Amino acid sequence: MSRRLCIALDAMGGDHGPAIVVPGADIAVARHPEAEFILFGDEALIDPLLTRHPRLAERARLVHTDIAVRMDDKPSQALRKGRRHSSMWLALEAVKRGEADVAVSAGNTGALMAMAKFCLKTMEGIERPSIAAIWPTLRGETIVLDVGASIGADAHNLVDMAIMGAAMARVVFGIERPSVGLLNVGVEEIKGIEEVKEANRLLRDLDLLQLDYRGFVEGDDIGKGTVDVVVTEGFSGNIALKTAEGTARQLFEYLRSAMNRTWRARLGYLLARGAFNVLREKMDPAKMNGGLFLGLNGLVIKSHGGTDAEGFAAALDLGYDVAHHELVRHIAGNLARSESGLVAAERVAS
Amino acid sequence: MSRRLCIALDAMGGDHGPAIVVPGADIAVARHPEAEFILFGDEALIDPLLTRHPRLAERARLVHTDIAVRMDDKPSQALRKGRRHSSMWLALEAVKRGEADVAVSAGNTGALMAMAKFCLKTMEGIERPSIAAIWPTLRGETIVLDVGASIGADAHNLVDMAIMGAAMARVVFGIERPSVGLLNVGVEEIKGIEEVKEANRLLRDLDLLQLDYRGFVEGDDIGKGTVDVVVTEGFSGNIALKTAEGTARQLFEYLRSAMNRTWRARLGYLLARGAFNVLREKMDPAKMNGGLFLGLNGLVIKSHGGTDAEGFAAALDLGYDVAHHELVRHIAGNLARSESGLVAAERVAS
Repeated sequence: MSRRLCIALDAMGGDHGPAIVVPGADIAVARHPEAEFILFGDEALIDPLLTRHPRLAERARLVHTDIAVRMDDKPSQALRKGRRHSSMWLALEAVKRGEADVAVSAGNTGALMAMAKFCLKTMEGIERPSIAAIWPTLRGETIVLDVGASIGADAHNLVDMAIMGAAMARVVFGIERPSVGLLNVGVEEIKGIEEVKEANRLLRDLDLLQLDYRGFVEGDDIGKGTVDVVVTEGFSGNIALKTAEGTARQLFEYLRSAMNRTWRARLGYLLARGAFNVLREKMDPAKMNGGLFLGLNGLVIKSHGGTDAEGFAAALDLGYDVAHHELVRHIAGNLARSESGLVAAERVAS
Repeated sequence: MSRRLCIALDAMGGDHGPAIVVPGADIAVARHPEAEFILFGDEALIDPLLTRHPRLAERARLVHTDIAVRMDDKPSQALRKGRRHSSMWLALEAVKRGEADVAVSAGNTGALMAMAKFCLKTMEGIERPSIAAIWPTLRGETIVLDVGASIGADAHNLVDMAIMGAAMARVVFGIERPSVGLLNVGVEEIKGIEEVKEANRLLRDLDLLQLDYRGFVEGDDIGKGTVDVVVTEGFSGNIALKTAEGTARQLFEYLRSAMNRTWRARLGYLLARGAFNVLREKMDPAKMNGGLFLGLNGLVIKSHGGTDAEGFAAALDLGYDVAHHELVRHIAGNLARSESGLVAAERVAS
């Protein structure tokens, strides 16, 4: 790349639109002074905000559009009204045209995925894109995919995810040969659905150089950080992610109310406040914000719709990271390398 | 029932066998003085323990067997070596013969389910049994099923689970018309796998009197306690359960290490210790111990294999509760009532 790294922003996405996107990008500018930004959205709303963030304004270009995809638009509606003209579409198109290296949106997931597939198309050899999340664990961080795109993924989709997730772990965590596990249930013999068992056989037979396949893992292995990459189909992955978020929120709620019960507990809380802040920081969804769409001809990050500027900046950090390391090129290389292996493995299996 | 309520115990099940089962049952005797127990297992191990727990000894009968299913036996192995003679089988058979009202085992789940199906058979109209767990929530408790038996359950299986889960909620929580939700993912239009969508249509059309069907819920609704009963297929249910357990453990671990970081935090911890204990109690898996097998001609409870006496007693509490309320009879009644409705609903749908 001869030009600087460029991030395309759907400035109208999310519950708060430019009010979060602009200050979020301003935080990111300070962390990545070599990055440039293109903001797509309503200039009447964005311009005044840019004036208040001169650091960002210096590195950003604004492209006006009246059209924005709404958080409650269905994917088909979004495609009908937003294709070619919406802020979401234009951000994706900037990636397609090579003007930007990654697109980031806090807009609705279904619409963003539908538009991304339409605009960027899936990579050669990839049937279905997936969404990867970075999950805090006791050992650090783990990549979990898919967390919601590939409902009912088959064995081949799962193998693709393993390869893409490993490529992402190499880039994001800097691990040469990331460990990969397939999410499964812990009951012997009736173990798992057919697709998962088949993916396990394929991954064993492939014995890929670029990843260290460790077999099955269970739900509690995610939080333990047993492997660097956990692969699962979109339905169960989404349920795992939401259930973990719910459990964390539930525990914080219990903690908050327990710490208010007596004067001793309140005093204890005041003394240990620093420790509580560390805890909150560790499990803060904002710090881990950003689902990465994998399997498309271009990088797309989905930020939480309700995030704050700090959370949006975290999504931009992830975008910067994967763009800087040219993740798509890595994935394409790894897929090509494993393609011949997959054919061989199937010949053996059949 | 003319005789007292009787609980059959697989005294050899679990990581610690009689060393946990006997003191656990002793705790349960104090809570349910009207209950009786039959212990199946090795008398050389159990007899000395009973001597030390005279309160239980007075209410318990011991049936000797040399054979015990091991925690790592596969279901097929367990069936081969343990059918007719193992402590696990004998406890189930006591229920089948009407000598006991419920069987409780901390043995391995796969073996227990395989034997329970073989011994007790599934209820008329039920294709696949499921395992229900009681989940602590911000609003109290929610029943989640299936957490591991019905991998790849279809729409009809899910409808059966809704009916059985509601019957259980009526008995365990004392709610006349429990609210029921189907676990799904939150992405619009590509929402969910076909089976879940179909079960949703069936439950809407059936419009059952005995439960208040609320449509789809997401993973984070479990911890919120949005509904009394959450229905899902066994693969995703097991992953949700294990992921939540993992997240809770992870948070406690963070909390423990955060509270050890500085002298202020340590002092704070000492002052707030009571509050922390309340918190621990709320999320303690031992307090919620016991997966109930639903859909069989008899009641079977699976306790955690690694639980302590207090945890095993909690599983016995659940067993006592569902046996006391004759849950199987309730379920049979509800299934019969909904059967004609289901036929009608399908006629409308097709």
